[in-house]
Amino acid sequence: MPETAPLGEFERIGRFFRPLAAPGALALTDDAALLAPAPGHVLVVTADALVEGVHFRAADPPDLVARKMLRVNLSDVAAMGARPLGYVMTTALPQRCGEDWLAAFAAGLAADQREFGVGLLGGDSVATPGPVTLSLTAFGEVPLGQAVRRGGARPGDGIYVTGTIGDGALGLLALEGRLPSGVAAASLTFLGDRYHLPRPRVAAGPALRGIAAAMLDVSDGLVADLGHIAETSGVAAEVERDRIPLSPAARDALGHDPGLWAAVVGGGDDYELLFTAPGPVPDVVAGVPVRRIGRVVAGRGVSVLDEGGRSLPVAGGGYRHF
Amino acid sequence: MPETAPLGEFERIGRFFRPLAAPGALALTDDAALLAPAPGHVLVVTADALVEGVHFRAADPPDLVARKMLRVNLSDVAAMGARPLGYVMTTALPQRCGEDWLAAFAAGLAADQREFGVGLLGGDSVATPGPVTLSLTAFGEVPLGQAVRRGGARPGDGIYVTGTIGDGALGLLALEGRLPSGVAAASLTFLGDRYHLPRPRVAAGPALRGIAAAMLDVSDGLVADLGHIAETSGVAAEVERDRIPLSPAARDALGHDPGLWAAVVGGGDDYELLFTAPGPVPDVVAGVPVRRIGRVVAGRGVSVLDEGGRSLPVAGGGYRHF
Repeated sequence: MPETAPLGEFERIGRFFRPLAAPGALALTDDAALLAPAPGHVLVVTADALVEGVHFRAADPPDLVARKMLRVNLSDVAAMGARPLGYVMTTALPQRCGEDWLAAFAAGLAADQREFGVGLLGGDSVATPGPVTLSLTAFGEVPLGQAVRRGGARPGDGIYVTGTIGDGALGLLALEGRLPSGVAAASLTFLGDRYHLPRPRVAAGPALRGIAAAMLDVSDGLVADLGHIAETSGVAAEVERDRIPLSPAARDALGHDPGLWAAVVGGGDDYELLFTAPGPVPDVVAGVPVRRIGRVVAGRGVSVLDEGGRSLPVAGGGYRHF
Repeated sequence: MPETAPLGEFERIGRFFRPLAAPGALALTDDAALLAPAPGHVLVVTADALVEGVHFRAADPPDLVARKMLRVNLSDVAAMGARPLGYVMTTALPQRCGEDWLAAFAAGLAADQREFGVGLLGGDSVATPGPVTLSLTAFGEVPLGQAVRRGGARPGDGIYVTGTIGDGALGLLALEGRLPSGVAAASLTFLGDRYHLPRPRVAAGPALRGIAAAMLDVSDGLVADLGHIAETSGVAAEVERDRIPLSPAARDALGHDPGLWAAVVGGGDDYELLFTAPGPVPDVVAGVPVRRIGRVVAGRGVSVLDEGGRSLPVAGGGYRHF
């Protein structure tokens, strides 16, 4: 069976991916790239797979798909308290992804490589009879013994988030035309942008080393991700719903339909940092606002409390991609 | 859109992939794994994507697909002169890949993890409406400055290969029923096994540090891969066809159809080491036979010579997966 893509692997790599190569990538001409953490540091390694029709829509611009894929992984690196270094990527592309698609996809990566100071270390590019399927493995470095993990939460810790929560899930609803008609056009645009282009907290993550006891990024949803921390740490978490930081656009949407709170606490794709800390936490970390939203207690599970301290019903399980 | 797979991501990971976790994987419960090369070493990183219907057949046993995917990447690690450490894997699986498929797939990985002393560091497992799509990023370590690259060949070097060449391409033809009818059943079985289950030269690769000037593994085909060395090094390569080491099964096939030489020199999937060396090379390296097949000369391109020193026609380009 001949290659089904109009460009062969070597041509795709040479024209579109080689210009993205980092120094350790050996110009993508060898079997493997070379990578070493700085002395006294370890590498953190994280990977995600994205499938067209599952994690993004066929109509999504390829540059935004590329940037979101990279950013989602940089967010995981940051949530370990690590500084981003680079990434390896494999692409399985159907024939219809021709030169225009590849050029836009590579341009998105190039833009974010400049913004986040990372480079492409290597990978593979193959043809598929199926949907666009992307896999990205990202690398960061963190001083030995200082990686911030999920299992470090202890009763008495405060629970904190960076930025605002819920914009990702509301953004997906906005893009699908499922928000109330009264929501302002500017709010819809803001939320849609937040869904398409998360802002990984690459500076705040490393800055929280020594402050955060347990940390991850909000990708599955606030309640589900807090559940990951609680379960791995063997503790329970209580969140005061009215302390959850919201963007003006999210407030606009909630003003039209309070039922959207379910999307705020249960939805995903925020890519903010969620952490617990036993001691004081600055209001702003590396330029990013940080808000205390609850506390770690003995027990199991996650509770979301209303202003009177009553437990609100919380949908079980995690966010499932649309 | 709900998850299309019968098992959710968390269940798939917990039941089938967590038992494969290496120590640095943090039991696959964190956002990222931790990985550090030994002092004085650097990591080598390589990745491959495999698509059902392109790189393997839907009817192939999932344990063999898993093992071949891992072995192909360990071969790339070995070709840099590095010792294998572990891997990160993402899987995009259609709904029909249920528990039996996953159990067989994971069992294949477990068997090879034991054989090669590597572990799963992390990854992702998602649903796809398309074909099984796998991506694996493998890691090895090599002493600083001692990685063997493609660009080190110089005129006067000998050209060498480990093991035997052509079994992979002939094996694929055997599996497709395209070898002559007179070829022995035992030969067909041997060749098919070689295609399904390559033997990455994980010990010979590191043992060739300090001996090999340029090295890679034969995946695209002997002529194409030698072309990669020649092009990157800025030299030409001459191969004496009759020196190419063949298995008894390959000899059997060639005895029935000398036209199959095209598959031997042009086909891929051998995963033997191909290297150049300026000095003496042992006949056996780490238990693997090594054969001199030609020499590096000034110029460009790859020539294959017959017993009289005449240049044989060589198909251009590389091996294209079936």
